Amino acid sequence: MWRQGLGVVVAFGEAREPGDLLRPLLEIVTSDMEAVNRIILDKAVSDVDLIPKLAHHLIASGGKRLRPMLTIAAAQLCGYKGTGHVRLAATVEFMHTATLLHDDVVDDSDYRRGKKSARLVWGNQASVLVGDFLLGQAFRMMVDVGSLPALKILSNAAAVIAEGEVMQLAAANDTATTEDAYLAIIAAKTAALFSAATEVGAAIAERPAAEQAALRSYGRNLGIAFQLIDDALDYSGESARLGKSVGDDFREGKITLPVILCFRRGSAAEREFWNRTLCEGKIEDGDLEEAIRLMKKYNAIEATVERARHYGQIARDALAIFPSGQHTHALTDVIDFCVSRVN
Amino acid sequence: MWRQGLGVVVAFGEAREPGDLLRPLLEIVTSDMEAVNRIILDKAVSDVDLIPKLAHHLIASGGKRLRPMLTIAAAQLCGYKGTGHVRLAATVEFMHTATLLHDDVVDDSDYRRGKKSARLVWGNQASVLVGDFLLGQAFRMMVDVGSLPALKILSNAAAVIAEGEVMQLAAANDTATTEDAYLAIIAAKTAALFSAATEVGAAIAERPAAEQAALRSYGRNLGIAFQLIDDALDYSGESARLGKSVGDDFREGKITLPVILCFRRGSAAEREFWNRTLCEGKIEDGDLEEAIRLMKKYNAIEATVERARHYGQIARDALAIFPSGQHTHALTDVIDFCVSRVN
Repeated sequence: MWRQGLGVVVAFGEAREPGDLLRPLLEIVTSDMEAVNRIILDKAVSDVDLIPKLAHHLIASGGKRLRPMLTIAAAQLCGYKGTGHVRLAATVEFMHTATLLHDDVVDDSDYRRGKKSARLVWGNQASVLVGDFLLGQAFRMMVDVGSLPALKILSNAAAVIAEGEVMQLAAANDTATTEDAYLAIIAAKTAALFSAATEVGAAIAERPAAEQAALRSYGRNLGIAFQLIDDALDYSGESARLGKSVGDDFREGKITLPVILCFRRGSAAEREFWNRTLCEGKIEDGDLEEAIRLMKKYNAIEATVERARHYGQIARDALAIFPSGQHTHALTDVIDFCVSRVN
Repeated sequence: MWRQGLGVVVAFGEAREPGDLLRPLLEIVTSDMEAVNRIILDKAVSDVDLIPKLAHHLIASGGKRLRPMLTIAAAQLCGYKGTGHVRLAATVEFMHTATLLHDDVVDDSDYRRGKKSARLVWGNQASVLVGDFLLGQAFRMMVDVGSLPALKILSNAAAVIAEGEVMQLAAANDTATTEDAYLAIIAAKTAALFSAATEVGAAIAERPAAEQAALRSYGRNLGIAFQLIDDALDYSGESARLGKSVGDDFREGKITLPVILCFRRGSAAEREFWNRTLCEGKIEDGDLEEAIRLMKKYNAIEATVERARHYGQIARDALAIFPSGQHTHALTDVIDFCVSRVN
C-alpha cells in the first residue's frame, strides 16, 4: 500500500487483510450510514406487500453497501455540512439494487450473495417490476435532495448503466470480444455507478470542477478495478472464502477479461474449447477445471489483477489533489481492498 | 358531447366519430409535436446497435402519442412560452415506452399494436434492459429541463406506476378482486402517467396550485376512463376495427372490471367458469365466446363504459376553472374520444 505524502510504501499483497482495508472507510461513515440504512428501509416500504418483501430480501442480504459509503466519504472529503448526501447515498444503493434485480432476470441467475435470488423466490415478473419501483424511488429521493448537478450525474449514470448492460448482452457468448470492448462494457455497467457515487459527493458540496472531476475519476477507475477483480474471482480459489461460487460466469457463458486473455493467448485447439463451452454453451464435466488450468497456463488471472492495479493506480493519483488526511487514506485503502481481494 | 359555456349538449355516442374527436388536439399540438418526435428519435440513439433497433420498433409502431400530446396541450393551456414542455413530453412518451417493454415481458405478450412485440423479436433480456435505458434517458431529459416541480411530478409517477404494476401482478388470476382494488391498480399503473403528463404542463408554466391541481385531476380521471375503456374493448367487437385483438386479457388471466362485474353478478356455476378460465388458466375452445356471452348477459361492458363516463365527467369538471377556448375544447374532446372508442 502506497500513501501519498506519507512516504510509506508497502507492496501489494503484503499489506493488511482485505477486511482491514475497509475499516478506515467504515470508521468515517458509520454515523452517516446509520441514517442511510434507515432511509433505505423506509423507502423500500409500500402498501403493496410484495414490494417490501422482495426488496428486503435483497437489501438485507448482506451487501457491503460500498457505493453509498463512497458517496458519504466523498461528501465528507469535500467538507459538505448538510444532510443531502445521506439521501444521495441511499439513491445510489437503490439504483444498484434495481440493477441487481434486473441482472438476475437477464442472466437467469438462481443465487445472489449466497442466497436464492429474488427471481427464484418471487419470479422474473416481480423482480422486473420491483426493480422498476426501486428505480422510481431512487429518482424520487434524488429529486427530494433538489441538487440539479447531482440529478444530472445520477440520471446520466442510470442511462449509461443500462447501455452497458445491453452492450454486455450483445457481446454475450462472443469469445472474439476485444479487451477494449470489454473495458467499454464494464466502464458503463459497473464503473458508471461508482463514478456517480463519488462525484455526487463533490457536486452536493458545490466544490470546484477540479475536485468533482477528481472524484469522478477516482470512482470510475475504482469501479473498473472492482469489476476486473470480480471477474478474476470467478475463476479463483479465493471465491469460496468470500462466499462466492466459482464458475458462475463460466456456466453463464460470460466473456470476461480472464477469458479474453486466455482465448487470445491460446492455441487453436484451446480456442476451440472456449468456443464450445462459452459460445455454444456445451459444458461437460471437468470443463470448469480445464478452464481454470488454462487460466493458470496463460497467467490470465494475474494479468487481470495487473490490469486492476493499473486502474487502481489511476484512482489513487486522481485523489492526489486533495490534502492528505483521514478521508484520502480511507479512500486509498478502498482501492487496495478492491484489488487485494484476489491474490 | 357537452361543452362548458357553449350550451352545446350532444349525448354520448351520437357525437362525431372517435377519430374526429382527436382532431382539435392534433391541431393545437402539431407544431410542438414535430419537435417532440425529433427528440424521441434523437434520444433513442445509442452506439449500442440493439438499443435504437429495439426502441424504434416500438416507437415507430404507430402509437397515438396521446400522453405527450396532453403535456403539450396542458402547457399551452397554461400559457407556457418556453421550450421545456417539448422535452417533458418526450420524457412522458419514453416513460410510457419503457413501461410497455417491461409489461410485455411480465405478461409474456407476443403482440403489441398488431405487431410482434419487442420481446418476441429480441427476447426478454433485451426488452428489460432497453426499457431501463429508455427510463434512464427519460430522467436525463427531465433533468435537462431543470424544473424541480416537474421532476417531482414525473419521478413520483415512475415509482407509482411500478407500484401499480406490482399490485396488478399480485392480483393476477384472482377473481375475488374488488372493484376498489382494481381501481387502485389502474389509478397507479395507467392514470398516474396521464396525470403527470398533464400536471407537468401547468408546473413548467409556473401556474397557481389550483390550475396544477385541475390538470392533475383531469389527467388522472381521463387515465382511469381510458383504461376502463381499454379493458372493455378487450371483450368487444370494436377491438378488431381498432387493430386490437379480442380476448388478450382473457387468455392472460387478467382481472379487469368487466370480469369483476360478471363474477359478482353471476351464478355459482358462472363463477366456476371464471375461476377455471382465469384462476386456473384452463381455457378451452369456445370459452372466450362464453365469456363474451356472460358479459352481455350481465351488461358488464355497458356498466364498465358507464364507469368510464363517470370518471370522464370528473375530468371534464376539473377543467372548468380554465376559461373556455380552443384548448379546453380540445381536452374535453379527448375525454369523449377515450370514452367513445367502444359503444
